[in-house]
Amino acid sequence: MTALYSVIKFKIIELIKSGKYQANDQLPTESEFCEQYDVSRTTVRLALQQLELEGYIKRIQGKGTFVSAAKIQTPIPHKITSFAEQMRGLRSESKVLELVVIPADHSIAELLKMKENEPVNKLVRVRYAEGEPLQYHTSYIPWKAAPGLAQEECTGSLFELLRTKYNIEISRGTESIEPILTDETISGHLLTNVGAPAFLSESLTYDKNEEVVEYAQIITRGDRTKFTVEQSYHS
Amino acid sequence: MTALYSVIKFKIIELIKSGKYQANDQLPTESEFCEQYDVSRTTVRLALQQLELEGYIKRIQGKGTFVSAAKIQTPIPHKITSFAEQMRGLRSESKVLELVVIPADHSIAELLKMKENEPVNKLVRVRYAEGEPLQYHTSYIPWKAAPGLAQEECTGSLFELLRTKYNIEISRGTESIEPILTDETISGHLLTNVGAPAFLSESLTYDKNEEVVEYAQIITRGDRTKFTVEQSYHS
Repeated sequence: MTALYSVIKFKIIELIKSGKYQANDQLPTESEFCEQYDVSRTTVRLALQQLELEGYIKRIQGKGTFVSAAKIQTPIPHKITSFAEQMRGLRSESKVLELVVIPADHSIAELLKMKENEPVNKLVRVRYAEGEPLQYHTSYIPWKAAPGLAQEECTGSLFELLRTKYNIEISRGTESIEPILTDETISGHLLTNVGAPAFLSESLTYDKNEEVVEYAQIITRGDRTKFTVEQSYHS
Repeated sequence: MTALYSVIKFKIIELIKSGKYQANDQLPTESEFCEQYDVSRTTVRLALQQLELEGYIKRIQGKGTFVSAAKIQTPIPHKITSFAEQMRGLRSESKVLELVVIPADHSIAELLKMKENEPVNKLVRVRYAEGEPLQYHTSYIPWKAAPGLAQEECTGSLFELLRTKYNIEISRGTESIEPILTDETISGHLLTNVGAPAFLSESLTYDKNEEVVEYAQIITRGDRTKFTVEQSYHS
């Protein structure tokens, strides 16, 4: 048995996907939905809550419920690309929240293949597309690979900076992607609801000598982005 | 300011990742955590709730809290692969929940490039790895591409079946991936908590004549799987 609110939720998603409700359109009120689908207000409210958390709709206090803009589609590339490239033509920028040198704790040391307590640059950035915050990006870079990294240099491509300033030749990376729920801190920076679904990507990037040059934790808003993949078939 | 429960949550994640707490280890009780970190029970409870939703820990009524097994890593390939291949050596199987012929509604018709109300095979499967449900997979296949599809044929690779029974040569696919929250239906089939983060993949698969042969919605447990990508760098 499918829960009733799920049925209502998917009906509304269908109406958005089919274009019946377009971006920025105002949706019917809760009581109009109750009448339209002949269900209780609790059911409608649950459906709208989930739709909001998943980014399909926005509820604006005192104004009503509106259809969100379509999600930004980000290809999952098999080449390492910069955030600007991933945003494919959208105006992108990064703001540096923090750049500090910290001693590597046990897990950072293991990931970066260094000893505990060796110095590490910790760089925290928020990345924007068209002025909207999309990613909360924390990088850990061995200090010895990039000594004297300065905050004002870190608003563009980090890998480009590592190449030009430190002669580091990036060769490959591995990335894992998980769905998570945003907490208050992340939601505050990314302007989402607390508990909204998001992607957590963890990446390790290597130079041509197989030294780890960056370990990153990237939280990407799920309500504003979807990842895309193109696949071929070889039987 | 990072919320206190987030700090506790990430401390516990670190302890799991570093191997201090191993899979199936019993964690301290709520009150032990309170004492250990000098925080309130509400804070500990919030941290444990999120850890459970995200799949790091399992709480077993009357027994305590245990560390979950590590997530299954599924590569995001640039070739179309079967579920069995994605599970790389784990024992995999599919159970068919439903196979029915339905009239295409507006959005299915648009996706499959057919007229509304034309017949479509709707196939719903749950996919298991080592006996554990991982994916809730709904396929829409134009009836005219695969007339007379039978339920008992659908427990193996669908694309293999389309090739051998219907002479369909798959050529390529596109997939989008979003993070969502599971609802009661999905949680019931996948044995997760309601509201747990999961992946929703939507895929379109084409044959060599560029006809759409399948539109699929695949919900993959986020508490038991992470997607992985290997990337190379060409500057």
